[in-house]
Amino acid sequence: MNRKGILYIISAPSGAGKTSICRAILSFFPSLRQSISFTTRELRVGEQDGRDYHFVSPEIFAKMVEDDAFAEWAEVHGNCYGTARATLEQASEEGADVLLEIDFQGAEQLRDSGLNGVFIFILPPDMSELRRRLESRNTDDTKIITRRMANAAGEISEAKNFDYLVVNDVLDQAVEKVRAIMIAETSRTERIINILPEEFDLK
Amino acid sequence: MNRKGILYIISAPSGAGKTSICRAILSFFPSLRQSISFTTRELRVGEQDGRDYHFVSPEIFAKMVEDDAFAEWAEVHGNCYGTARATLEQASEEGADVLLEIDFQGAEQLRDSGLNGVFIFILPPDMSELRRRLESRNTDDTKIITRRMANAAGEISEAKNFDYLVVNDVLDQAVEKVRAIMIAETSRTERIINILPEEFDLK
Repeated sequence: MNRKGILYIISAPSGAGKTSICRAILSFFPSLRQSISFTTRELRVGEQDGRDYHFVSPEIFAKMVEDDAFAEWAEVHGNCYGTARATLEQASEEGADVLLEIDFQGAEQLRDSGLNGVFIFILPPDMSELRRRLESRNTDDTKIITRRMANAAGEISEAKNFDYLVVNDVLDQAVEKVRAIMIAETSRTERIINILPEEFDLK
Repeated sequence: MNRKGILYIISAPSGAGKTSICRAILSFFPSLRQSISFTTRELRVGEQDGRDYHFVSPEIFAKMVEDDAFAEWAEVHGNCYGTARATLEQASEEGADVLLEIDFQGAEQLRDSGLNGVFIFILPPDMSELRRRLESRNTDDTKIITRRMANAAGEISEAKNFDYLVVNDVLDQAVEKVRAIMIAETSRTERIINILPEEFDLK
């Protein structure tokens, strides 16, 4: 039987360091495919359409929702984000592993839909460090930071449904943990059992 | 809450490379404690009492079985092997991680007893390679090798109860996989949830 691709879902509250971790992970695994989400939010400095997100208008996004084109989608801080079903289906057919960097609500939707993926939640070491990181970004005003902190507290308290919780205190160590999780999951019995030699008579 | 120690159970058919892998793993994790089994078998060249095994007489082993001193024990190829309950209990109390290198029957006993451990089974790439490795050891005659091959086939076909199956084709790669499994398990939600900050309100 052909190897099935593994879907790694990485989620985190704003400011926990999800994007830095995912960037490092993608450089470790050259054949890992990044799922590019669709979003209605504005492109930020340094971002690129088609690389960071597919930036679309609210009208196009709404049409895609109507057409059931998303495996998950959510409104976060007033903007919409979604993962196209086509992206995941194509990777699965090709046996490719996919890294999906999504918000908490999206991850919960995928989990609830029974998707067979590896769910990883990134945590800050504590709440005051999360606030410090959000403030140091200098991109958001106090009101937005307060909202992000409240959302973070809610998400963290519900994070027990994820398979793994990785504390991002020192970035390199958090990356090493996520990398280890990804390697380990390839050897989990239920994933590897179908690609072992038939003479092993495992079933 | 204090961190609980994790028990890593590594098992494999004779010749799959379990001992080489465990030796490398112990050098990677200096604080990892090795559980030393008791055995009635003869000490082999290069082995040391108290380091590789506690070598005891069949009479002493039988007395320990009678006293319920073993968490698991089994007779393998005519010799007895067992893990003392005291070894595991002491490590658990001290929050120490333990590496337990045991035979298939012993691992199954621990699994059946509901022990909360990480069960890893090492596999050869295929059966002909396993035979080649057993023959190249030059320690066993043909009859013993035939018996080991038959046992190996039986164990492998039942290995689906382990959490992880690691194929030992290239030793370094197998070691890297086991190492990744051990790092990953420290971030599994059910293991880490009790040692995260209380303000996260995770439960």
